[in-house]
Amino acid sequence: MLDESYMRLALELAKAQRGQTSPNPMVGSVVVKDQQIVGLGAHLRAGEAHAEVHALQMAGDKAQNATIYVTLEPCSHYGRTPPCADQVLEAGIKKVVVAALDPNPLVAGRGIEKLKKAGLEVEVGLLARESEKMNEAFNHYIVHKKPFVTMKTATTLDGKIATVTGESQWITGEEARQDVHLLRHESDAILVGVQTVIKDNPRLTTRLERAEGRHPLRVVLDSTLRIPRDAQILDTSVAPTWICCSQAASREDISTLSERGVRIIQTEDSERISIGNVLKKLGEEHVSTLLVEGGGEINASFLEGGHVQKVVTYIAPKLIGGHLAPTAFRGEGFSSLKDAISLKDLSMEQLGNDFKVTGYIR
Amino acid sequence: MLDESYMRLALELAKAQRGQTSPNPMVGSVVVKDQQIVGLGAHLRAGEAHAEVHALQMAGDKAQNATIYVTLEPCSHYGRTPPCADQVLEAGIKKVVVAALDPNPLVAGRGIEKLKKAGLEVEVGLLARESEKMNEAFNHYIVHKKPFVTMKTATTLDGKIATVTGESQWITGEEARQDVHLLRHESDAILVGVQTVIKDNPRLTTRLERAEGRHPLRVVLDSTLRIPRDAQILDTSVAPTWICCSQAASREDISTLSERGVRIIQTEDSERISIGNVLKKLGEEHVSTLLVEGGGEINASFLEGGHVQKVVTYIAPKLIGGHLAPTAFRGEGFSSLKDAISLKDLSMEQLGNDFKVTGYIR
Repeated sequence: MLDESYMRLALELAKAQRGQTSPNPMVGSVVVKDQQIVGLGAHLRAGEAHAEVHALQMAGDKAQNATIYVTLEPCSHYGRTPPCADQVLEAGIKKVVVAALDPNPLVAGRGIEKLKKAGLEVEVGLLARESEKMNEAFNHYIVHKKPFVTMKTATTLDGKIATVTGESQWITGEEARQDVHLLRHESDAILVGVQTVIKDNPRLTTRLERAEGRHPLRVVLDSTLRIPRDAQILDTSVAPTWICCSQAASREDISTLSERGVRIIQTEDSERISIGNVLKKLGEEHVSTLLVEGGGEINASFLEGGHVQKVVTYIAPKLIGGHLAPTAFRGEGFSSLKDAISLKDLSMEQLGNDFKVTGYIR
Repeated sequence: MLDESYMRLALELAKAQRGQTSPNPMVGSVVVKDQQIVGLGAHLRAGEAHAEVHALQMAGDKAQNATIYVTLEPCSHYGRTPPCADQVLEAGIKKVVVAALDPNPLVAGRGIEKLKKAGLEVEVGLLARESEKMNEAFNHYIVHKKPFVTMKTATTLDGKIATVTGESQWITGEEARQDVHLLRHESDAILVGVQTVIKDNPRLTTRLERAEGRHPLRVVLDSTLRIPRDAQILDTSVAPTWICCSQAASREDISTLSERGVRIIQTEDSERISIGNVLKKLGEEHVSTLLVEGGGEINASFLEGGHVQKVVTYIAPKLIGGHLAPTAFRGEGFSSLKDAISLKDLSMEQLGNDFKVTGYIR
C-alpha cells in the first residue's frame, strides 16, 4: 500500500511535465528512507537531468540505504547525461522499485541488470500499466521511429462536422475547445490538410485560458503547394510551420514559401503525398507526437492507411442532419462491417454539455 | 430524510410497473404509521385499482392516523375507479405527502384541495422532479393528446448507421441491443418507414433475454401501401400491425391488407402522409408512447417537423467512413449551426463496449 502511494506520487511528478519532455519520456522518482520521503524528482526537459538524479540530489546523504521509486527503468547508457543506474549505485541506494521497463526492446532490462549485479534489491512492475500509458506516445515512437498519431474530431450527435454549407464554428462548447488546446499543448506537432487551411484559415496555435500554452509545430499536407499566400498559418512568428509537398510542387513555389520562413518537406511521391512518407520524415525530425485535426478526407487517408493510434472525439448534443453535410471520416469507407476499424480501451467524460470519447485503434 | 426514503420507495414501486400501466401513469404509494411501513401499493394496470387503494387495503385499520406517501396527486374524479382522495379520507389518514401534481393543468390541485378542505395535513413536491420524469410520456400525452416520441438510433463513432452497401447488422453489441428491446417493451408503439421494412424486413418484436417482453403495436408509414406482401411485420399473430397510408393508396391494397389482419389508417394527406396527422391518429387511439426506429429519412421528417421529445443514441466504438455511407438524420439538414436541434438533460452510460446517450429536445 505504501509502496503504491510512493509510486503514484512519482507518476504524478512525471505527468506534471506533460508536453515539455519530448522527445524524452515523462519520468518521476521518489526517494524514501525510514518511511520518510527524502527526495523528489522529475525529468523536466530533454538534455537536462533525469528524474532519479534530481531525487537523489534532494536526498543528499539520506540516500544511503534508502529506497528509490522510479516510474521508468533507470538508463544504463551514456546519452546526453551519464547513466542513471551508475548514479543510483554511487548514492548508496539499497532498494530500487521500478514501474515499467525501457520501452526499447533492445535495451529493456539492462538498467535493472546492472543494479541487480551490484547487489541491490530490485522490484519491477508496480503500476507498470499506468507508467506505460503515460508514455504511450514515447513508447510508440521509440519502437516505430514515427510519431504517435492522435486523431481529433468534433461532431454533432448525428456525426456531422459541419452543416451542408460548411459552417463548423463552433460545433462544441468552450470546455471541449479548451480541451483541444490542451491536446495541442501536449503535442509536438499538429497536422491539417491544405483544404482545411483554404476553408477555415486556422492559426492552429495553443490558446489556453489559465496558462501559457506551448505551440506545437504546424504541419500542412499540400502536395502541389496551393496554400493561399495570405493564410494565417504562414505567419511563423508565433510557431514554426512545415508544409509537406510531393514532386508535383514547383521549384518556384518551394523557394517563395521557404523565403517566408516556412520549411518545405518534399517527399519522393510523384503526385499525391503518402501519409507513410510524411510520418517517416516527421519521425526523422524527432516529432514523436502528432495531433491530426484534418477534415474528413485527411482523416480517411490516415485511418485507411492504418496510421492512427488514438482517436479523440468530442460529441456535441446537437443534431444538424442533411445527407450532404460532412462527417469526420469520409473517403470510400469500408463496405463491410467486419472491416470496420474497432476501438479499444475506451473512456468517456463530459465536458460542459459535450462528451469526449477516447479510444485506441485495435 | 425518512420522508425522502419513503417517497423513494413509492417511486421504486411505481417504476417497477413500467410498460404495463399505459395509458395510465405509473404511481406508487407507501403508508407509514409510527415509523413503520404498514402498506405498499402501485398502480398495476389501467382499469385496476390505483396505487393508494392497494396501499390502504394492505394497511387496513392501521391506516387510521397514518401518513400516506404517493408519487402523484390522488385523483378527485370518478373514472373507471372511484376518486382516491375519497378513499384516503375514508381510511382515516392524517397526513398526505405527494410528489407531483396531476399533469393535466385543468385538474391539477383538485385532489389536494379536497384533502386539505377535509382537514388533512398535505405536503406537495417531495421528489417531484423524479416523479415527473418517470411519467414524462404520460404527462406529454395528457397535455398534447399525441404520443411522447422517442427517437432511437444506433451509429458508429463516426456517425454512420450502415456501411455504404447498406450493411447495418450489427453496429452495436449485444448489451445495447438488449437495451433497445427494453425500450420496445416500455413503448405502446414502435414506428418505421416502409423503406426499413423493404431493406431489413424486421419483426420489431420485443425479445428480452431474461424475461418475457411486451410486444408494442407496430406502425409502418407507407403512403402508397407498397409494403412487400411477404414482410415479416405483416404476421400479426405475435403483435398487431398498423399501416398508415395517404389518399394515394388504392382501395384494393387497403382491402387486401385489411383482410390479412392489418389495420390500415388512412390520413387525409393526398400524397405523402404527414407525421403530424399520424401522431394525431395514434393519440386518438390511446397510443401514449411511440418509439421511432426509422431510417435517416423518417428521422429527418420527425426531427424537422418538431415531433420528437427524446433522443436515445447508441454509439459503437467503430469507424466505417465513406462519404456515401448513411447517417442517422438525413433530409436536407440545417444549413446554419444556430438552427441545429439542441438536446438538454443529457445522460450517458456504457453498455458493453457501446455508449448510450440520452437527451431531450430543447
